[in-house]
Amino acid sequence: MSQLYSSMKPTPVLKDELDIVVIPTILNLDFLEMWRPFFEQYHLIIVKDGDSSRTINIPTGFDYELYNRNDINRILGPKSSCISFKDSACRCFGYMVSKKKYIYTIDDDCFVAKDPSGKEINALEQHIKNLLSPSTPHFFNTLYDPYSDGADFVRGYPFSMREGAITAVSHGLWLNVPDYDAPTQLVKPLERNSRKVYLSIQLPILYVDAVMTIPKGTLFPMCGMNLAYDRELIGPAMYFGLMGDGQPIGRYDDMWAGWCVKVICDHMGWGVKTGLPYIWHSKASNPFVNLRKEYNGIFWLEEAIPFFQSVTLPKECDSV
Amino acid sequence: MSQLYSSMKPTPVLKDELDIVVIPTILNLDFLEMWRPFFEQYHLIIVKDGDSSRTINIPTGFDYELYNRNDINRILGPKSSCISFKDSACRCFGYMVSKKKYIYTIDDDCFVAKDPSGKEINALEQHIKNLLSPSTPHFFNTLYDPYSDGADFVRGYPFSMREGAITAVSHGLWLNVPDYDAPTQLVKPLERNSRKVYLSIQLPILYVDAVMTIPKGTLFPMCGMNLAYDRELIGPAMYFGLMGDGQPIGRYDDMWAGWCVKVICDHMGWGVKTGLPYIWHSKASNPFVNLRKEYNGIFWLEEAIPFFQSVTLPKECDSV
Repeated sequence: MSQLYSSMKPTPVLKDELDIVVIPTILNLDFLEMWRPFFEQYHLIIVKDGDSSRTINIPTGFDYELYNRNDINRILGPKSSCISFKDSACRCFGYMVSKKKYIYTIDDDCFVAKDPSGKEINALEQHIKNLLSPSTPHFFNTLYDPYSDGADFVRGYPFSMREGAITAVSHGLWLNVPDYDAPTQLVKPLERNSRKVYLSIQLPILYVDAVMTIPKGTLFPMCGMNLAYDRELIGPAMYFGLMGDGQPIGRYDDMWAGWCVKVICDHMGWGVKTGLPYIWHSKASNPFVNLRKEYNGIFWLEEAIPFFQSVTLPKECDSV
Repeated sequence: MSQLYSSMKPTPVLKDELDIVVIPTILNLDFLEMWRPFFEQYHLIIVKDGDSSRTINIPTGFDYELYNRNDINRILGPKSSCISFKDSACRCFGYMVSKKKYIYTIDDDCFVAKDPSGKEINALEQHIKNLLSPSTPHFFNTLYDPYSDGADFVRGYPFSMREGAITAVSHGLWLNVPDYDAPTQLVKPLERNSRKVYLSIQLPILYVDAVMTIPKGTLFPMCGMNLAYDRELIGPAMYFGLMGDGQPIGRYDDMWAGWCVKVICDHMGWGVKTGLPYIWHSKASNPFVNLRKEYNGIFWLEEAIPFFQSVTLPKECDSV
């Protein structure tokens, strides 16, 4: 990189402390072109599942390492069965091989969204802001994230609690196609993430300009589509449940990780944020395919949630 | 009211089941003029504290009952000392004399706000929507209120919990001047509720288009400036702490009620919502006066919060 070039591009925050983990669901990663201004200075870890003999097209100019199923088998040996096969849950192999403090993971059907003013949203930058500022898991601030620009704690917020907690996870949202389960998709064929159906408008109504901490003791559905976290802090808990070929349940991989992570963060006193940044989710997956994947999980969910809601970890548990 | 007139004005929702409680802090209620299109068909309860001999100016055409300190003393006798003197906390006398199922209370320095499209916000209508739709205190929905128009539960939200809980309280927010405590006011003399300081612009940036349930087990700072609740359900708990003349602590009256209400709602399985609707808060109160009122409360807060966070009500407690 020439001096001129480097002087034109300022080094982004956490450049050497964050890996971006992506999973190609098709045989190219063209979606990275749209993210180039925001991602190109970061290192990418690409985990390609399925047929190892087929090559994928990665846009030039990105710094990346690529793993396919043969690599996973070679590196993990018999333990490779812990990594989901033919399922996006295989992304947690990328989390494992990373050596960085922070991870950002994004799906390849997610594009750059625009805020209501029309400006393109640098999702990664917002995730980093979320992770580097504290959380408020122990008391609710009615004006949302008190650490965001221009915001603060409202009257009645205990002064001794304003230091906040360390933030372990930043969960971003999605515009356009909401992240619905198969039954909801089936009954709402035209629904999008907007107050009304705007089929031809790029920016739906429901842009909620807020980041908030999910309070201690409350579980949430964590979607792995637009997610950043502190790997050193919570990494081992960010195991996406075993799904895909040969497994009875699909589409609950990220949910499983979310429930484990939230229970552990609550125990350790760390915070989990949700809200900004938005990404643009380009298209809904097939609800019939999804129903087949989810079917068993729908019943299992009703047993898993009460377990995670009632589990308490002993005080001696002091590491993830 | 002529038939023609009544045919032109549709009856608003809960017209005969909701009272609006207001407190004149100055000697007129001119602020009602701005609210006329939204309030005029509802019944008002006006609680006028301070000097009973001075009359206040109430715009014509409103249906109201008015109480002054003499009325409070006459009706309550020796128990009238439970109603704060020369403090907006006296509004809870209005809650008591109401015979309606729902209460909406608003301060007289609060005006009609506009949404980002420039449309005037009918705050009362939004509060009623919040109260008449369920809450989600037991599981967090990342796309905010799943019962609002066009919204729904996201993937991973347990199906058995989608019925939600009864909503007891709807806590609205405020644009322009945020509800800060005196120390925060003192250190932020120019701050308004916007990401930047826009002294001459009517609509600040921070309009967050969301309603959410405050999860079970989490306390929040409840502001009494723009608040609606189900009086039959939670009424007796909505006692604003004794403040004002002769009391050591001020400006924590609504906070006290909020902590009591939240602990009881959590115990009873009811929901508390916060977010929309916004009102326009016209001016900040004097931070020096506020500091004098709040001073003792700042220390007391640090003891009160741990108490409310740790208190558990026995199962036998099944009424408010």
